[in-house]
Amino acid sequence: MRSPQQLRNGNRSPQEHHHPPRFHSTVAEHKLRRFNSLILLFRLVSFSFSLASSVFMLTNTHDSASPKWYHYDTFRFVLAANAIVAVYSLFELGASVWEISRGATLFPEVLQVWFDFGHDQVFAYLLLSASAAGTSTVRTLKDAGDACTASNSFCVQSDIAIALGYGAFVFLGFTSLLSGFRVVCFIINGSRFHL
Amino acid sequence: MRSPQQLRNGNRSPQEHHHPPRFHSTVAEHKLRRFNSLILLFRLVSFSFSLASSVFMLTNTHDSASPKWYHYDTFRFVLAANAIVAVYSLFELGASVWEISRGATLFPEVLQVWFDFGHDQVFAYLLLSASAAGTSTVRTLKDAGDACTASNSFCVQSDIAIALGYGAFVFLGFTSLLSGFRVVCFIINGSRFHL
Repeated sequence: MRSPQQLRNGNRSPQEHHHPPRFHSTVAEHKLRRFNSLILLFRLVSFSFSLASSVFMLTNTHDSASPKWYHYDTFRFVLAANAIVAVYSLFELGASVWEISRGATLFPEVLQVWFDFGHDQVFAYLLLSASAAGTSTVRTLKDAGDACTASNSFCVQSDIAIALGYGAFVFLGFTSLLSGFRVVCFIINGSRFHL
Repeated sequence: MRSPQQLRNGNRSPQEHHHPPRFHSTVAEHKLRRFNSLILLFRLVSFSFSLASSVFMLTNTHDSASPKWYHYDTFRFVLAANAIVAVYSLFELGASVWEISRGATLFPEVLQVWFDFGHDQVFAYLLLSASAAGTSTVRTLKDAGDACTASNSFCVQSDIAIALGYGAFVFLGFTSLLSGFRVVCFIINGSRFHL
């Protein structure tokens, strides 16, 4: 596999081969900043959705007669998955701001790109399975009848929490595409930059 | 963005810049063949699992007293998702064998890499959500009681079908990583090869 210097300096004369490996033109810097800002934006949206979903599920106890969210396995799973994603997104927001402001990753580069991509993938799948399981339970509750007719607000609030979870999943999925792009750039070029 | 010729001929003299773009050494050919064979293997396993899951769910009608799979929305979803993945995997198996035997993709290259990656991603998410929803329904049936105690084989066979669906999802997920790698190679190098 070629080193990034060799790739970047493809058609230059040998005297020019001693540039520092992180040299970028202004245009490339601009594009990288836009790429990182896009990741930051997606993470922010994903954080907002998952936090809102956790709060909606956690406060889903209306009066003593209505059912409670913690009586249902799948609703506990929805809350846990959304809380995990909210904490992770908050951490990654910090790491992303650090990277944009200082131009270097928080962890060593190889660790950072794999950490981001691995967690994005796994947590996206986690969130989707939690939301799908929650949807299935809400449907069962509605079909079975008495839980939703006795306390309609419980079912509505569960629906909202699960829908917010789907929203968080969509943006986490987009983020995992971008962080996957950085991983492959790192594998091919030896650097997370594709330019 | 650089053309593949520039990248491949990184440190060579200008006279050598007129090689055909698809030139590969024997070692590179060997590595590409191994990469494509790995994709083929994953697709074969994914096809087997999803076909088996469809068959298990479809034949899940024991006697007239036991519940039927088509009375449950989520079990219909499990069957549909697994059947779609089985058909898609069969098609992709053909495309993969074509590519290995002839050295060229079935569709034009740009279409093929995006088609593979897009469908792998979407179908992996589809299969996971179907399996998670199915798991949730089976748990509800077991907790509610009478369906599983009256006809235990119905619940066991549903469990097996859903577990096989999870197996198909895992291998489809691995395949989507590999086809994602090819997409990024195509974006960066203008070719699906990373060498």
